[in-house]
Amino acid sequence: MARAYETVSFLSDFGTQDEFVGVVKSVIREIAPHAVVIDLTHGIAPFDVRAGSLALARSISYVASGVVLAVVDPGVASARRGVAIEVADGEGVLIGPDNGLLAPAVSMAGGAGRVVELTNTERQLPAVGATFAGRDVFAPAAAHLCNGVDLSELGEPIDAGLLLPGVVPLPQADDTTVIAQVLWVDRFGNAQLNVGPADLSERFGDRVDIRFSVPTDPTGGTTRSARRARSYAELPGGAVGLVVDSSGMLAVAMDQRSAAAELGLDVGDQVTLTAGDDDAQPGSQPVSIRPH
Amino acid sequence: MARAYETVSFLSDFGTQDEFVGVVKSVIREIAPHAVVIDLTHGIAPFDVRAGSLALARSISYVASGVVLAVVDPGVASARRGVAIEVADGEGVLIGPDNGLLAPAVSMAGGAGRVVELTNTERQLPAVGATFAGRDVFAPAAAHLCNGVDLSELGEPIDAGLLLPGVVPLPQADDTTVIAQVLWVDRFGNAQLNVGPADLSERFGDRVDIRFSVPTDPTGGTTRSARRARSYAELPGGAVGLVVDSSGMLAVAMDQRSAAAELGLDVGDQVTLTAGDDDAQPGSQPVSIRPH
Amino acid sequence: MARAYETVSFLSDFGTQDEFVGVVKSVIREIAPHAVVIDLTHGIAPFDVRAGSLALARSISYVASGVVLAVVDPGVASARRGVAIEVADGEGVLIGPDNGLLAPAVSMAGGAGRVVELTNTERQLPAVGATFAGRDVFAPAAAHLCNGVDLSELGEPIDAGLLLPGVVPLPQADDTTVIAQVLWVDRFGNAQLNVGPADLSERFGDRVDIRFSVPTDPTGGTTRSARRARSYAELPGGAVGLVVDSSGMLAVAMDQRSAAAELGLDVGDQVTLTAGDDDAQPGSQPVSIRPH
Repeated sequence: MARAYETVSFLSDFGTQDEFVGVVKSVIREIAPHAVVIDLTHGIAPFDVRAGSLALARSISYVASGVVLAVVDPGVASARRGVAIEVADGEGVLIGPDNGLLAPAVSMAGGAGRVVELTNTERQLPAVGATFAGRDVFAPAAAHLCNGVDLSELGEPIDAGLLLPGVVPLPQADDTTVIAQVLWVDRFGNAQLNVGPADLSERFGDRVDIRFSVPTDPTGGTTRSARRARSYAELPGGAVGLVVDSSGMLAVAMDQRSAAAELGLDVGDQVTLTAGDDDAQPGSQPVSIRPH
Repeated sequence: MARAYETVSFLSDFGTQDEFVGVVKSVIREIAPHAVVIDLTHGIAPFDVRAGSLALARSISYVASGVVLAVVDPGVASARRGVAIEVADGEGVLIGPDNGLLAPAVSMAGGAGRVVELTNTERQLPAVGATFAGRDVFAPAAAHLCNGVDLSELGEPIDAGLLLPGVVPLPQADDTTVIAQVLWVDRFGNAQLNVGPADLSERFGDRVDIRFSVPTDPTGGTTRSARRARSYAELPGGAVGLVVDSSGMLAVAMDQRSAAAELGLDVGDQVTLTAGDDDAQPGSQPVSIRPH
Repeated sequence: MARAYETVSFLSDFGTQDEFVGVVKSVIREIAPHAVVIDLTHGIAPFDVRAGSLALARSISYVASGVVLAVVDPGVASARRGVAIEVADGEGVLIGPDNGLLAPAVSMAGGAGRVVELTNTERQLPAVGATFAGRDVFAPAAAHLCNGVDLSELGEPIDAGLLLPGVVPLPQADDTTVIAQVLWVDRFGNAQLNVGPADLSERFGDRVDIRFSVPTDPTGGTTRSARRARSYAELPGGAVGLVVDSSGMLAVAMDQRSAAAELGLDVGDQVTLTAGDDDAQPGSQPVSIRPH
């Protein structure tokens, strides 16, 4: 017997200037009045599938049981498939375009169970134009699942192995150097790197040199000494820190100001971390364990 | 016996930087705890009644049954009336200022049924200042309707024919030329025109010349060749397209970039469409049927 | 027996570009599925505790009974305490950092009843990093209260007298002059002052001279004549007004344009009001009663 759901967690690049988000919620409300929609964010930059996939991955372990609806969909109405992916023995279902957006979250949720392509037009709205699959295809699918419609009624099963993977850049690490990348700059200007604290060997002490390119600097790079800190408030005014952020990753941060703005860091920038000298333990065994 | 409602769909120019939207929802929550509020958008530019009326008209056929609360209200506390308008035999009620904001949506919903002016102060909050009718007049009205209070208890009946009409610009079309206007530029930079596909005669083929003024161009106009496409993704990089958008109207669009930014198009701009030469069918009968 | 709550009213400086707000709501949804979260605003400028405290104070008398969750928290993970404060005999509980953010709202709600520091980690989420107390500490506290958990189970009681007070600037007023400050500039450009209509003596008539500094003006100040008006629409085009706003305070305003932008006013600016000459009543008794 099919399971019903109570919650739809919704992420998109729709913004909130237009009525897109409201219309999607209206469609869900009309089909499944009992379902509660929780907005994760709609502030993903237009078409930025990677940023959307990372935000979804950061959220997924906190999201309520139920349906996750994610729409960053530059290829709408093209050959890209719309899919619904069961995870965690059906405790959750992720719905969206098969363009890599869902992949990291699916992986963090333990991998895909059943997968269908959303081919059953009887479970969709008649489309005026083909450009708003969020309204016409994905929202009805989410709502019908909430009503207890089984995944298999939404379309043809497909092989989970054929889903488009997400692309998350891996750092290059050795004993004294880690070449990292900025994954995300949040509202407060913290620049999250693609490394966790366990990516730094024991050679790294309380001070870490961080080197990055600055477009306006013709010498091609700047080095700053960052101190490792548990909280932003531990950083004296103007000091740059490396703080374990709320996703468990290292972030370049400052106290009550934007490290990204101050240092000129943006998503995708390379940041090289080098063990500083203050309290390095040269005789220790370097150990590198990825946090996730 | 009066009908009760479960949903309030809410549109405004309040933005979300301030607490205005939250306070309106708090008022509704306190009076009608069972009502669910769905935000259509609060990103209408301040005082832009026309933009609000268009967003509401685009949304109305998707909005859940119940109350629609719309507040773009430059004339708050002046002579303009606050009204509640029944539509679709009472399946919905639109509430807001009588300044043209509601008119296109009412029309799309089949026209006005009973109408009252919101004159009954016993169904309003005692106002601190007169500037926030959304909180003091419109929200309580919406909430009381949700509780089953009859429309007639909110104020004096007025003649629907006296409501201020909305103003939607009409295109001028002949066999080979359509003079259109940009109605809306969405977050993705698609420039919606006030013409649907049926406004183009059969003389229009797959290619359409679009001509528009560019403020920075002293010659007063630019012409681009646009190809008609079903989806953005069909447009090769840099090509301009005419796509049937999610409202069923033609939009000037590009693939994964903002056509409006690229071409310098803004709301209100005139765009002239002329049949291109590639596949025109000179002998065919021109037919022009308005879509709505 | 403990009281349970149905509503969480949520204010923060999280913005909506990132998923912070959505994650906080997801945590509440998972712990207390019946609770409805109402967003007051998340547009408080990053770290701006004062702006957050003022927005909360403006909202508090409209907020639904239940829990108020407020997070503007530059000192997260430092020595600052997280607290829960009962008000109105337990009709409401305010949760957030003890940094002055909650103080004005608590005061407007009649003062603090029981207060606890949120020290009971069994009622919190295990933190990945220490930087997101909204998710790990405050949201679970709010949700548990909704479930009927008593305040005393969230941590150790503390003396309400030891809570950090908020700082609201007081005006200086005499018979013919009031030195005020801009508390808030809203989306529409109205500049709310820290004076209510009762702060102006009877010497003030329908016209008030307002004097303020303009950074770009080397003479250090500009004087404009403002007319008192009940609504924005009463102000002729280009005229500056003093309008009693929706909080009952005087705001410098214009009709359908931003007075703040036009006059160069910003939060914190000093504005001196002087009785104009048009209809001053020189023989009357000056009376000054503070509105709150």
